[in-house]
This record gives sequence, C-alpha cells and structure tokens, in this order.
Amino acid sequence: MMRTRPLKVALLGCGVVGSEVARIMTTHADDLAARIGAPVELAGVAVRRPSKVREGIDPDLITTDATALVKRGDLDVVVEVIGGIEPARTLITTAFEHGASVVSANKALLAQDGAALHAAADEHGKDLYYEAAVAGAIPLIRPLRESLAGDKVNRVLGIVNGTTNFILDKMDSTGAGYQEALDEATALGYAEADPTADVEGFDAAAKAAILAGIAFHTRVRLDDVYREGMTEVTAADFASAKEMGCTIKLLAICERAADGASVTARVHPAMIPLSHPLASVRGAYNAVFVESDAAGQLMFYGPGAGGSPTASAVLGDLVAVCRNRLSGATGPGESAYAALPVSPMGDVVTRYHISLDVADKPGVLAQVATVFAEHGVSIDTVRQQGKDGEASLVVVTHRASDAALTGTVEALRKLDTVRGVASIMRVEGE
Amino acid sequence: MMRTRPLKVALLGCGVVGSEVARIMTTHADDLAARIGAPVELAGVAVRRPSKVREGIDPDLITTDATALVKRGDLDVVVEVIGGIEPARTLITTAFEHGASVVSANKALLAQDGAALHAAADEHGKDLYYEAAVAGAIPLIRPLRESLAGDKVNRVLGIVNGTTNFILDKMDSTGAGYQEALDEATALGYAEADPTADVEGFDAAAKAAILAGIAFHTRVRLDDVYREGMTEVTAADFASAKEMGCTIKLLAICERAADGASVTARVHPAMIPLSHPLASVRGAYNAVFVESDAAGQLMFYGPGAGGSPTASAVLGDLVAVCRNRLSGATGPGESAYAALPVSPMGDVVTRYHISLDVADKPGVLAQVATVFAEHGVSIDTVRQQGKDGEASLVVVTHRASDAALTGTVEALRKLDTVRGVASIMRVEGE
Repeated sequence: MMRTRPLKVALLGCGVVGSEVARIMTTHADDLAARIGAPVELAGVAVRRPSKVREGIDPDLITTDATALVKRGDLDVVVEVIGGIEPARTLITTAFEHGASVVSANKALLAQDGAALHAAADEHGKDLYYEAAVAGAIPLIRPLRESLAGDKVNRVLGIVNGTTNFILDKMDSTGAGYQEALDEATALGYAEADPTADVEGFDAAAKAAILAGIAFHTRVRLDDVYREGMTEVTAADFASAKEMGCTIKLLAICERAADGASVTARVHPAMIPLSHPLASVRGAYNAVFVESDAAGQLMFYGPGAGGSPTASAVLGDLVAVCRNRLSGATGPGESAYAALPVSPMGDVVTRYHISLDVADKPGVLAQVATVFAEHGVSIDTVRQQGKDGEASLVVVTHRASDAALTGTVEALRKLDTVRGVASIMRVEGE
Repeated sequence: MMRTRPLKVALLGCGVVGSEVARIMTTHADDLAARIGAPVELAGVAVRRPSKVREGIDPDLITTDATALVKRGDLDVVVEVIGGIEPARTLITTAFEHGASVVSANKALLAQDGAALHAAADEHGKDLYYEAAVAGAIPLIRPLRESLAGDKVNRVLGIVNGTTNFILDKMDSTGAGYQEALDEATALGYAEADPTADVEGFDAAAKAAILAGIAFHTRVRLDDVYREGMTEVTAADFASAKEMGCTIKLLAICERAADGASVTARVHPAMIPLSHPLASVRGAYNAVFVESDAAGQLMFYGPGAGGSPTASAVLGDLVAVCRNRLSGATGPGESAYAALPVSPMGDVVTRYHISLDVADKPGVLAQVATVFAEHGVSIDTVRQQGKDGEASLVVVTHRASDAALTGTVEALRKLDTVRGVASIMRVEGE
C-alpha cells in the first residue's frame, strides 16, 4: 500500500557525504519508496558554495539559506551532514520546532549536546537518528540501542577512527615511525591537512561518548571521556608490542565497573594481543567489540568513514525515520535512566607495559620492584637488558588502577637509578 | 513517563532459551521496564513437561495447554521458542488472531512459511520479529532490514552454523577426520545426538533462506536454497586447502547476479583464503559478511547459538515489539517487493578446486585440459603429481557456472585416463 504524497527531505551540506546521499535518493528512488511505503523527495539542499556544480541535483533546490530551509514547515526529515557545533546545532533544533525529524552524522555535536538535542526532539515528538555519527556504515547505534535492548552491556572496545588505524597499521607492518606513516596517510587522503582531530583522539573520544551513553543508558559527554592521542607512539613501542605477541591500536573503551555502579570512557593507544580480533583490523577499517551479559562477545566490522559508507548509514536512518512518520510513531529516543556516575581515569583498572631506562648496576631491579609494591601494583613480568653501563627494564603489570600506576611512575622518576621512563602503554583485550 | 499497566508476555517453550528469557525478564525487570516505558509481566509459560522444576518461574504460570494460552486475548506478546513447524505455526497464527505480536527464534518455520506468517501478522496489524532465528545473538536481521534499508545488498556470505564450524575448525587445526571431529563435538555438547540438521546443512539452509529474503527484498524459501552438507569433507581436502593458502568452511551464500536481475542462495563447504576475515572464525562462533553498494564490506561476528545469546536476541526483539505496542505502531514487516527470481544452482558462478586421480602417462594433462576448454571452463592453475604409474591432477579454475563445471566433471569421468574424481570444492571469498 503506497502513499502517493512524497515525504519531503532537506539536505544540510552537500560535500562528500551529502552529495552521495542525494545521488542515492535519486538513483534508488523506487527502492526507497518501496521500503518506506511512500516516495521521498529531495526538497532542498543547503550549501555554502552555491556556484559549485553538483551533478544530478536540480539547481533550483540549492540554497545558501539553511535557516530558511529548515523553517519551511513542510519538511518531513532534515538530514544534517555539515558537521561541527554551529550552525548545525541551531539548524537541528529549528528543524524540530518546525515539524521535521532529523538524521545527523555529526559526532562532535552529538557527543557534546546529545542530551539537549534529544530533549528538543522529544518535546516536539520528532526523531533524532545518527547511525552515521559512529563508525560510518557499520551498524552500531541501532544494534546497541535496539538489538541489545534486553541485555546488559558491560564493555565496548573498538577501533573507531580509520585515519589513526591506517597510521598504526602502517607503523606495525613497515616499521615506519609516526611522522613517516602520517605523511603517507596524508598523501593517500586518509589524513586531513590538519590531522589533530584524528591523531589526538578527539574524533574517537566523541564516538566513545556516544557509544558509552547508549550502551550504559547514561549521559556521557565528551568531557567525561579520558583522551590520549597516538602521536607519541614510536617504532620502539611496536617492537616492544611484538615481543609481547601484541600490536598497538588506538582504542575507544567504554566499561562498566566490576561492581556495576559506575562507568568509564576513554581513548588511548594500547597494546592488544595479536590473537584478539581487533588486532587484525587493517588499514582505515573500523571494528567494535561489544561484551554483554547474555550475548557474550559480538564484533561489528566495516569501513568507518568515506562518502558512500556514511551515506549508507544516513539512508538507513532516513528510511527508519520516514517509516516512523508514516505510522505516526517515533523510534527510541535518549535512554539515560540508569544515570550511572562516570568515574575519572584514575579509577580505570587495566594492565600496563612500562619501559624504564635505568643504571646498569646491582640492586636496581629490587629498588624498582619495591616502588611497584609500595603502590600496590603487582608485577607480572620483568625483562632486563643491559649494555655499556646503561640498561632497560621492561615491566608488565597485573591489573591495577590508573591512579596506582600514576603514583608508581611518579615515584620511579624520583629514583636516582631510573634515568627515564621511556614509555607507558596500557595492555587491553586479554 | 512510565505506564503502569504491564505488558503481558506469554512464553511458548521453556527449554535452554525459554528458561533464560524468563530468568532475564525477572532479574532485569526494572531495566526492561525503563527501556520499554512500561513494565513487562510474564503471563504464562507453555511447556510439555509440567512436572519439571523451573527455578524462578511461578508454578501457577506453567501450563501444558499452549493453545488456550495464546487464545487468552489479553496478551501483548507471544514469545515462541518451541522450534519446528507444528504446533509452532498454528500457535503463532492463533496468537495474531487473538491480538498478540510475536517474537520467534524459529528458523525452520520462518524459512518455510515466513511469507504466510508475515501476511497473518499484517492482517491483524501485529509484529513478527525473529532476530534470534539467525546467528543467535548476532544482530543481523535488524541491520539488514533497517540499517541497510537505504542501501543495495549484493552478497551475504557467512558461517551461520556453530556445530559445523566447530567440526571444521577441529579438522583444520588437528588434522582429524570428519568422524573424529564430530565425535569430539558431540562429547562437548556442540553437536546433537542426531547431527543431521547441522552437518547436512539444513539448519544453515534455513538461515540462508531468511537472510536472502531480507537482503534482496524477495521471497526465498528453504526449497530455493541449494544445500550440500559437510560430511564428505576429508583431511585430504584440508591438506589441499592449506596448499592453496585456504581453509574450509561451511558457508551460506546469498548473491545477487551480476546483472542484478536474479538471486541465488546456497549452502555448501568451500575453500576460503586464510586472509579472509571468515577464515579466522573459530570454534562454534558465527560470522556473516555483507557486501552492499554503498556500505561496502561489513562483518558481524559473535556466538551463533546457546541459551543466553539466543535469549539476548529474543529480548531485544521483545523490547522493540513492546515499544511498538505502546506507540500503536508496527515495525517493518515482510519486504518482498523486488520479487526477483531465484536462479538454480547451475547459474551460480564461482571458482572450483578439483582433484583427479589419473593415469601417469604422457598426454593426460592435454586430454583433461581439452575437456575443460570444451565446456568453457577456464583453468587457472594445474598441479600434477605422479608416483608408481598413478598420478593426481589438481585443477583450480577461473570463475565458471556450476552447470559448466558439472558438465566438465561428467565428461572427465568418461575419460579412460581419469580413474576417479577425488574431490570437487568451490573456492569463495576472493
């Protein structure tokens, strides 16, 4: 049973993702109509540069006045693929006020203002969907929010940034240093001219906030996410990782504490065993591991970025939101009823791999071991290598809190026999 | 905003899955209520053996009269975890007639009668959800049906039966033969006393029918799925696979033809390269690869069976169906608008690995190569090994239709110099 009045969709932004959304809406119009139960019509496209030629898009639909577009009042869905905080935030809330539901791919905005945007959607009885905001085409928001709605998620552990995974994979496979690998990523178009958002972990942290919020039914904002970039990962770190049967990945980790009473969210480079499924995620691919009480371990894998994959996620949401419009219902909104406290990084418990430059003389290991013991950090293995009066100590700990480890390292730095702390890296996925 | 009248749920079957569903409904009642927006109440449990002690379930809820239970008229959702065709089919349709939506884990029934059940659900304006029918806890139906609703799926390639993957993994890692590996699977509880449904591919074929139907928006019944079990896979096949840098998996493969005008669905053992993500799926785990136009390659991985994982999938559906009840809407029903023809196995195009026992004398290779050429099957590589007047020829072909390959093999068998066809195996995932 097909309704003939088309659903009207406005597109905010017509870059790599937006142009692909527009293209698929046109070329696959019949399929979309059949799946939705009514045709969808591109009612307007807001852009910054109206003079740019946009193949396949009726020039009459192009406007630079995004505000007027979302205020039209006859729109069913607004698709926001501008990115950034403003004007996206104001345009989305304006769209709700004027009767439209919203599909967004905007991770930064959702991570910062997700609660307020959900509240605005609820107030107006509209949908806010954003599968494309995390891990591109990989269905992740919907599985977490719907498929696992009857389960208790304890952990989300993932590679959610393709740029940094490309760089780390390159360092791992070729022995290249960070700068060399970054240069190659830039040359191949995997890294932007200013790679800060990726390599410093801001992008992954925004995704971690979104995933943690959904997984734990708790508001988690970007500020709640501990963030450490991967610019200081060295070829020597990869050599150490290999000796341990590990590789290094930039991970987003959202965890429920063992007692279930709090959660943590963090982004940092970490060693993971080569036998872990995330270790074999190559190039710019993304993958997310989800651990829950009943389902056990699930993994979702796919392209984490790019125009087409992101457009696939946007269009999946568009179909869902359109179906909801037709049935007069709304999909699941924000679920934050659990309202668990988000603990600081000091409370995170994991294992650590620490490289120390030490004096090559008797008694150093005993001194170092004493410092670990005094801070309650139990040592799993120590490897000592000496040459020419200098030596290195590689310590791998058992599970300890980040606070205890930080205290240990501070005390180690004060030892005369410790010349320097060459690297500290967390060990995950065991 | 919490509604206080509870949603009433009846459970048909209280075995491994059903008892876990009941347990989680009780222990996680508050979470489920918060996520649904209303409490859910277990209103009745239909079982075959009422005398069995069922911990945590009020004995007053137990009944042997499943028909009376689904006819009560006050049920919101019926959860069917009995399995098999009857009485499950009649109970589900009776449930729709009496106002309930249905969550089912019944792959055999869905593969055989999915269209009729969906029609019954639609007629009464009710939901029919069955995430648990395919690949246990792995979200797969929902991602295909909703997340990829704006994309065009071209291929679904997966390991969807844990028992056979356990057996094949064991053969691969230990060199064991089929019977030895099956015995171990049986001893460990991975295989049933009568393993026919698993090892002959019936279980996987049912899942392939369901996945193909959803992926291609086309009705695909169990009878449309080509099925070949894995009981004839030998240690020698694994040795051949290793020489090619491959392993052997029982795969469910649903494909859109290159011209897009038809689809195929099949289940059979196949060689896949060790570099393919499915090659590293170990033990009883399941994983499904999905290839689509815009999203590219996605993979979903997790436990494919077991009480808890299947219960997780059932409960995710239960939450969704309950939300739909509260909003007065229904979720996506059957989507079969594309109505593509399902082509027979002869039309399937893939590569083949063929081992022939041949006479060790000059001219045999030329004869064999001529037969391949006459049937339009192009040879990629040939390896010839001779000893004591006997020899073997291992031929790997380029892509060819199954019909062409079958014709080739028939002709080869008629050659005096070909003493036997030791094995034929398809090569996938390249």
